[in-house]
Amino acid sequence: MVLSTAEVMYWSTMFASILSASAGVLDARSKQFDLFGIMIIAFCAALGGGTLRDTLLDRTVFWVADSSYLIFTWFGALATFFLARWIKLSGRWFVVPDAAALGLYTVAGTQAALGVGADMLVASFMGVITGVAGGILRDILLNQDPLVFQGQWYATAAWSGSLLYILLIHNDINIGAAALIAGIFIFLLRLSAIRWNLVLPRYKEK
Amino acid sequence: MVLSTAEVMYWSTMFASILSASAGVLDARSKQFDLFGIMIIAFCAALGGGTLRDTLLDRTVFWVADSSYLIFTWFGALATFFLARWIKLSGRWFVVPDAAALGLYTVAGTQAALGVGADMLVASFMGVITGVAGGILRDILLNQDPLVFQGQWYATAAWSGSLLYILLIHNDINIGAAALIAGIFIFLLRLSAIRWNLVLPRYKEK
Amino acid sequence: MVLSTAEVMYWSTMFASILSASAGVLDARSKQFDLFGIMIIAFCAALGGGTLRDTLLDRTVFWVADSSYLIFTWFGALATFFLARWIKLSGRWFVVPDAAALGLYTVAGTQAALGVGADMLVASFMGVITGVAGGILRDILLNQDPLVFQGQWYATAAWSGSLLYILLIHNDINIGAAALIAGIFIFLLRLSAIRWNLVLPRYKEK
Repeated sequence: MVLSTAEVMYWSTMFASILSASAGVLDARSKQFDLFGIMIIAFCAALGGGTLRDTLLDRTVFWVADSSYLIFTWFGALATFFLARWIKLSGRWFVVPDAAALGLYTVAGTQAALGVGADMLVASFMGVITGVAGGILRDILLNQDPLVFQGQWYATAAWSGSLLYILLIHNDINIGAAALIAGIFIFLLRLSAIRWNLVLPRYKEK
Repeated sequence: MVLSTAEVMYWSTMFASILSASAGVLDARSKQFDLFGIMIIAFCAALGGGTLRDTLLDRTVFWVADSSYLIFTWFGALATFFLARWIKLSGRWFVVPDAAALGLYTVAGTQAALGVGADMLVASFMGVITGVAGGILRDILLNQDPLVFQGQWYATAAWSGSLLYILLIHNDINIGAAALIAGIFIFLLRLSAIRWNLVLPRYKEK
Repeated sequence: MVLSTAEVMYWSTMFASILSASAGVLDARSKQFDLFGIMIIAFCAALGGGTLRDTLLDRTVFWVADSSYLIFTWFGALATFFLARWIKLSGRWFVVPDAAALGLYTVAGTQAALGVGADMLVASFMGVITGVAGGILRDILLNQDPLVFQGQWYATAAWSGSLLYILLIHNDINIGAAALIAGIFIFLLRLSAIRWNLVLPRYKEK
């Protein structure tokens, strides 16, 4: 049996939803929200970026069309909620999976935007939104400054990768190959940024 | 003259808009926002949940289609704003009406989602969003942790009730009866949760 | 060569995007966000109100249809980001352009809403949303109470002007003339409010 690119991305995204939800729950640990709060934080972290993208592009919201996303997300959230009572979970376990999810979400978001005819700038920005807006929504609910506005290249990795994806597609590279190359590029760039502490310049005044 | 289920729900929702707006204004009391701030807080508290639901389901936003919702909401907000200068208003007066509004909004939201073909999980979640997202938006504007993530069963009451509603509908109960039963169920569950301090488990680490 | 009203408004809005983006960057100065954070704050400040309006009215989001808005906005943001390192920028330079942008955005938003058949109340509120919601989104990201809920008439100027615009249109005044009159009215009312410290009453309890 051979899976198509679309199928591989579909199942990877389901898997990424579990991990992103789980990471979102850990990010909220200090607030000690109740189970419903945890489910909403996980929902925002895992599905918020794609939701915003679909709303802005006037597409059917992906989890409204296919509620499996909700099931996987909340499975990840509940598992984390209960596991945290028994074993010590570390946010560091999620660094690598999170970089992979960033690559996946960003490429999927860029594809979705190109699919409805968005131009290059809009499509790359939609990729970034898909990859990072969930974390911004999570931080808004947690009442803290968005982490993505301050740390090592995160949005930067996403944006470079979405532009790379578009460039490859414009050069008639096969969609599956382009997705793989751009996704791995984002993954490696994000991990390199963490490893060598690569950051964007911050706002500074004379 | 006999009112249809739809008419009863329509007028109840208008009435609920006044009360939710008024409660939203009191929730914001410590910020001493100006009259415009009060109107926006009331708008979010009373109409925010339904607005988010309609946006996610790609339905026409209900108050864009029928601006009476804005009129009733702002009537409630302005009345509260001016009354507060003359008499001592208590947030406790709103506990019972708020539980009734939760039942009403949740059932209306679940109905709306079923109406556009959402499946059971999505429809019940849309009911919850309709019932609680307004309060979350209010708390975001007030720059405080969402109350609904920490108190006595609120979203829990809404979610149980929306699932009950869907169950009743699937068993061919008449829509009006199902709405009444589910709405009263939410109302009573919420009041019981307050009376006996029923809360969800909170996030806790080993 | 004679420009049509639509063309004048189009180019004025592009120009206003630069200025609003720049002002948004200065509003965020104390946070010292990185370059990506600056771009998102500028995006919210300059384009957030119109984005919310288009989402609520189920129109195609304006910058998705025409990505020039993104280019002008981010040009303004980047220019401010780099200039701030060389020269001392003052928020006061933006008071007058900001009042002009408020007039422009509000009138454009009211027009857009009337164009899809919104009634008077909804259309005037959409004008206000277009004019002020960007600033509210910026304040949510900056984790601070919305400035527009406390200062001198801002939303008030916008709302009066959008109602004036609708009144003029209903009395068969030419669209271009109505836009100009209402825009200037908002501009002058906002500047007067600053000059004579005109504020709305704030919430106060007995």
